[in-house]
Amino acid sequence: MKIAIMGFGVVGSGAYEVAKLAGGIEVKRILDLKVRPGYEDVAEKFTTELSDITGDTEIELVIEAMGGIDTPREFVLACLNAGKHVVTPNKNLISACYKELTECAAANDVSLRYTPSAGGAIPWLFNLARTKRCDNITEIRGIVNGTANFILDAMHDKGADFAEVLKEAQELGYAERNPSADIEGTDTLRKTVISSNIAYDAAITEDQVPCYGIDTIKACDIDWFKANGYTCKLMMKSKRNDDRLAVCVEPTLFAQDKLEANVKANYNLITLVADNAGPLAFYGQGAGSRPTGQSVISDVVDIRDAVEMKAPSKAGDITVDNSELRKYYIRHDRMCEHIEPMIESFEEKDGIFFCISKPIAVSEMHAMAQHRKEKGREMFFASIE
Amino acid sequence: MKIAIMGFGVVGSGAYEVAKLAGGIEVKRILDLKVRPGYEDVAEKFTTELSDITGDTEIELVIEAMGGIDTPREFVLACLNAGKHVVTPNKNLISACYKELTECAAANDVSLRYTPSAGGAIPWLFNLARTKRCDNITEIRGIVNGTANFILDAMHDKGADFAEVLKEAQELGYAERNPSADIEGTDTLRKTVISSNIAYDAAITEDQVPCYGIDTIKACDIDWFKANGYTCKLMMKSKRNDDRLAVCVEPTLFAQDKLEANVKANYNLITLVADNAGPLAFYGQGAGSRPTGQSVISDVVDIRDAVEMKAPSKAGDITVDNSELRKYYIRHDRMCEHIEPMIESFEEKDGIFFCISKPIAVSEMHAMAQHRKEKGREMFFASIE
Repeated sequence: MKIAIMGFGVVGSGAYEVAKLAGGIEVKRILDLKVRPGYEDVAEKFTTELSDITGDTEIELVIEAMGGIDTPREFVLACLNAGKHVVTPNKNLISACYKELTECAAANDVSLRYTPSAGGAIPWLFNLARTKRCDNITEIRGIVNGTANFILDAMHDKGADFAEVLKEAQELGYAERNPSADIEGTDTLRKTVISSNIAYDAAITEDQVPCYGIDTIKACDIDWFKANGYTCKLMMKSKRNDDRLAVCVEPTLFAQDKLEANVKANYNLITLVADNAGPLAFYGQGAGSRPTGQSVISDVVDIRDAVEMKAPSKAGDITVDNSELRKYYIRHDRMCEHIEPMIESFEEKDGIFFCISKPIAVSEMHAMAQHRKEKGREMFFASIE
Repeated sequence: MKIAIMGFGVVGSGAYEVAKLAGGIEVKRILDLKVRPGYEDVAEKFTTELSDITGDTEIELVIEAMGGIDTPREFVLACLNAGKHVVTPNKNLISACYKELTECAAANDVSLRYTPSAGGAIPWLFNLARTKRCDNITEIRGIVNGTANFILDAMHDKGADFAEVLKEAQELGYAERNPSADIEGTDTLRKTVISSNIAYDAAITEDQVPCYGIDTIKACDIDWFKANGYTCKLMMKSKRNDDRLAVCVEPTLFAQDKLEANVKANYNLITLVADNAGPLAFYGQGAGSRPTGQSVISDVVDIRDAVEMKAPSKAGDITVDNSELRKYYIRHDRMCEHIEPMIESFEEKDGIFFCISKPIAVSEMHAMAQHRKEKGREMFFASIE
């Protein structure tokens, strides 16, 4: 099978290398602004013209690994409309344009795959679809952002503060220069949207999902967690109850003997719960050149070998409903009339309040945090598992 | 697709129930000695005659869930030769007759699937085959026996002795009346053989794999593990180094912050390590009616939908070589001239020796334990991860 790769950065070049191992896959064209150093011997494959790919009838499949939304959206639509299958690890694109792209692929009778868009090397979305064919998925949850996990793990290990650990993560290549999507939870949010839509045949959008990241966590929070036997992880959470979906992204405290609590460094752990199978969890590297490249090529080989997961669609109207009650840890700097009624118990130390909430609605907790953020008040919260 | 089920016990009836959810699968015949209570309304499906299945041209696929080796082997061969696909969760059969059955299926141009034979509900073997298509598997390892894990977990939790916990496991249905295959490690051994043969395109047999179970573990061992920060798990281990395969079944001590150490009750956790993907782990229920039934039906749907994992076969001559050096915990009741030279340090308490070995070959450790067993001496060992 002859294929093309659009975007030859970390993941695009990783997929190129893995394709050699798979056999039977020839990368005919690479779309990028310039030849990547180390690839001068295949310089003739490189092009800056999309038409060199869409107009080449030998190319059956295109990997989109450019990143971003607008240009990849335009290029992927062009490829699908030219009758080419598409594989993409681009979560921003799939989360934002899921409906439009899947409909375009269907209209052109070609495949669109995006297993690596949530979970990196982990065959999470593939197995979610495979399980769904003969089971009813009731819940999905997981650690899906390696950067946030690396930072939390290092803070737990070393007792260091957020900024210091973030800097180390950037130096090691585990965090980007602009880490906002990872630390504010929006990367996790996108993977939550993608996974939920597959798990429940839904079409939820990013703006429907409350999202709280780890950018305001401090060493004093970690100290409290450790003293109380907890480990903090940034979690995707999505639980179905008939036509209601409780879905959010939030930091969560786990007892130290839970699987989640023992996911180290930049690793991911993603779980589905199904009526028959019970819980099934998947663990591995959520990012990286070769790991994600391997997942990209696994999708390519699936398309080549006509491996399809045809789940019976039971799409119904699903309403986001975050009225579920949970207990929260809340750290803040002033006991005011908004917070006091929510609190079950607290400790004060050097003017900082470490609180355990009464059971409160997820939506209420996230709204309160949003309100405090807008007011410029210091706080951090995490649900208690 | 019309199918038949041979053997209507725990897994056979579980598969029957899950098939209803999948849709498009009709169980036409059930082979068993008698109608299972609760299924009188479909009594006409039951038969005791294999020819009612092999001679029925409408039946395209047969699930074998009888257990054992000799009769299922004969019946499965008859079904394959009658041009029917076969799905089986029977690890005893697949481990013992892998080569014969896969060759018979190939000769008849039908599929033989056995994903649930290792890992129960966990799509372990499926993902092992999917990963292998574009990656090089270098290692597989895992907790694959739920009964042994339940016993070890309960001993760690309660400090109770082996016999007491085994009795409780039997009462709860987590252990069979004759638990020898689970506690002596032979069930784990079979899953090791099946997984290794798929991972490495090998054809190793049960007698090539050193196997040590947990039937001689005592509360005093657990006390020592806890005092030293370890948790004990019964592990399948299989690591490839070019044409050499280090493969065994043995109890293993993990630091308490490792994923394996936090696998509770009767759950399984199975890991592959591949050149590109790195480590990928899979967690879930390794047994049970609905969980295993779901995995059986997932294989059935794969066959119906022509989902095939065609890995390029790179089969080579693989030699079992257990000369790898490991450190072991050894508990025994007499310091003799066989053991003393192997020991790096030890504590003695009430005439019992708790020892840490020098790095010694896996084959040497297992041979020594076998020798002690034949002599009727008390001991237990576990490798230290």
